[in-house]
Amino acid sequence: MQIAILGRGVVGGGIVKLIDEAQTPLLQQIKIKKVLVHRSEQVLDSRHTTDFAEILNDPEISVVCECIGGLEPAHTYVKQALESGKHVVTANKKMLAVFAKELFDLARQKQLTLAYEASVGGGIPWIDNIKRIQRLEPVTAFQGIFNGTSNYILSQMEEKDLDFATCLKSAQKLGYAEKDPSDDIDGGDVCYKVCLSALTCFGQLADPSQVEQWGIRFLSQEDFAWAKEHGRTIKLLGIGRREAGGLSLQVLPVMLKKSSLLASVGLNFNGLQTESASLGQATFVGQGAGSLPTAHAAVQDLLDLAEGRGEAAADPQPGRLLAGPEQTFYLRTENSSFFAGVTAEQISDRALLTKKMTLSDLSRLLEQSGDQRAFLAGVADE
Amino acid sequence: MQIAILGRGVVGGGIVKLIDEAQTPLLQQIKIKKVLVHRSEQVLDSRHTTDFAEILNDPEISVVCECIGGLEPAHTYVKQALESGKHVVTANKKMLAVFAKELFDLARQKQLTLAYEASVGGGIPWIDNIKRIQRLEPVTAFQGIFNGTSNYILSQMEEKDLDFATCLKSAQKLGYAEKDPSDDIDGGDVCYKVCLSALTCFGQLADPSQVEQWGIRFLSQEDFAWAKEHGRTIKLLGIGRREAGGLSLQVLPVMLKKSSLLASVGLNFNGLQTESASLGQATFVGQGAGSLPTAHAAVQDLLDLAEGRGEAAADPQPGRLLAGPEQTFYLRTENSSFFAGVTAEQISDRALLTKKMTLSDLSRLLEQSGDQRAFLAGVADE
Repeated sequence: MQIAILGRGVVGGGIVKLIDEAQTPLLQQIKIKKVLVHRSEQVLDSRHTTDFAEILNDPEISVVCECIGGLEPAHTYVKQALESGKHVVTANKKMLAVFAKELFDLARQKQLTLAYEASVGGGIPWIDNIKRIQRLEPVTAFQGIFNGTSNYILSQMEEKDLDFATCLKSAQKLGYAEKDPSDDIDGGDVCYKVCLSALTCFGQLADPSQVEQWGIRFLSQEDFAWAKEHGRTIKLLGIGRREAGGLSLQVLPVMLKKSSLLASVGLNFNGLQTESASLGQATFVGQGAGSLPTAHAAVQDLLDLAEGRGEAAADPQPGRLLAGPEQTFYLRTENSSFFAGVTAEQISDRALLTKKMTLSDLSRLLEQSGDQRAFLAGVADE
Repeated sequence: MQIAILGRGVVGGGIVKLIDEAQTPLLQQIKIKKVLVHRSEQVLDSRHTTDFAEILNDPEISVVCECIGGLEPAHTYVKQALESGKHVVTANKKMLAVFAKELFDLARQKQLTLAYEASVGGGIPWIDNIKRIQRLEPVTAFQGIFNGTSNYILSQMEEKDLDFATCLKSAQKLGYAEKDPSDDIDGGDVCYKVCLSALTCFGQLADPSQVEQWGIRFLSQEDFAWAKEHGRTIKLLGIGRREAGGLSLQVLPVMLKKSSLLASVGLNFNGLQTESASLGQATFVGQGAGSLPTAHAAVQDLLDLAEGRGEAAADPQPGRLLAGPEQTFYLRTENSSFFAGVTAEQISDRALLTKKMTLSDLSRLLEQSGDQRAFLAGVADE
């Protein structure tokens, strides 16, 4: 099986390494014919090229592995690869979540595989295990820690009692966070992964821009202190539930009991859980990012194709986003009197616990209150 | 695909339920033609029989799913099923670990599948995920909580500060522990699962009776108090490592840091970890026992066969059991002066921490000391 790799950055470079140093006969069946790079000085040998047309027009290349990241040109390249009859493996959650309908429809029409294990949960075999459960029964819900950067920041804040800005800087120093960390700390990255997980678990498409999304940018030590006092820690979770007539998706910080399994997922690890009838809750924890773990996941998709186990893309239906369950929220806001009607317990002059309500209702109230720097978190029942 | 189920107890009954109530087209391809029961009053209809020959001689039955448990007649039935050209799915760790060489050799000669997902880790997709990693790279080590009953006892002792006998009784009342709990609390059950995991991870056969095996029968509240004082909890672990020239396998209680992931695997859950080069550490947590989760795992093996993805058995080699790494142990013994030469720190007149040493060396010393009721636990580095 001859493949092309688009991009030779963190993930693309890892894939090249794993395949070039192949240890198993199965992996040795995969040959990298071309690597697309951005700048001509990266063209180290005849295998490297800056011209995507060379890949597109090569009939020997049956699989394109996209590791460029971002929306364009990744989207156009993936689309063209599918149009020209090549299977696609991608690590690009953002591009795939945004263009899911177009790309899955195209792959299905062409009877091609569009595989994306590497785009959610890094090395964790998340997509594969969901599909395995579904051979037997529906996955009814999922939740988890989908972003390693924010989890590193939260773990540091808890362990070392430091403020958000300090921990963000340390994450940036270690290369976990980018210069503009918005996608990691405001929940955008989690949101894309939640949409792809919902697509896999429920067969329903959701527009990422319509998902309720709350991050950790305005988290303060005061919030962590309250969590600790109450035997809890704070994690940024992505949550999906299959509901009658649609689905509910949420991205938000949650105050988890310290004894819960996800509370122990430290450092920059991810921890993802499924819920299904006979299996109950199944949890998968591992490296959620990084060159080799993410490359491992992409190579697993390639191995499925090499084994003839690639599946034609499914036919996802547009999903109706519903409000989700009523729950208790922790809220810290400069305008707490505005929330008097939904307050169950006043914690301080700024912090409160709400009555049971939906995240949508609370989000609407927050918009009306005008506070752009409020911090909210779900308070988990167990 | 027509199958027979041997035994209609906890696991066999769960499999019958999942298949009879099949929700997916793939699962609906599996038909239960016969269920072997023990007593004639269990023969509810023509599908049930007490005569194994009826199953053996039925050419339409291509798969036998063994859920009897224990060594005999399970072993004879599985052997006869393979000899007559039927694939076997089993949930029976003890029988399979004890007769591994004979049965895997037979299955290989006959080009048949001998599948055992349900025999290790209940519903956790442990065997499947190990095999998936191995498509790409060797699994170099594994460890985990393999026994739900002992984990329930340990979790209760920690949480409620109760003694071992009280927690054992409560586990028996809930149906988690049997009247004779030896296999659960002395490490035998973990030992069989460790041998099957080693077979899967390293392709090496180990004789369960030769594996160093320490249980929790003599664990006291005093030991738990020391663990708590030092920010730790106690878990019964199975550990396997690939070593130059062989493998090392251990079953023993370990003092884990409270912040570690396995420390948070509570109740009767199992938590299993692999280590491999590019993926790093991957952890799988779920229901380690119980009717439906274990049945789920057995049905997954059946679905592999229905999808034509059954694999002929591999050719495992006899493994050489090596001593394993040197480590610190917590030891409580009535004869602590006997251990003066290996003591790094005296905790009380009965409890001590050893210098770094191998488990084999400590086991030998304990045998010499004559103390039959000593408690030992590894002290994990991280």
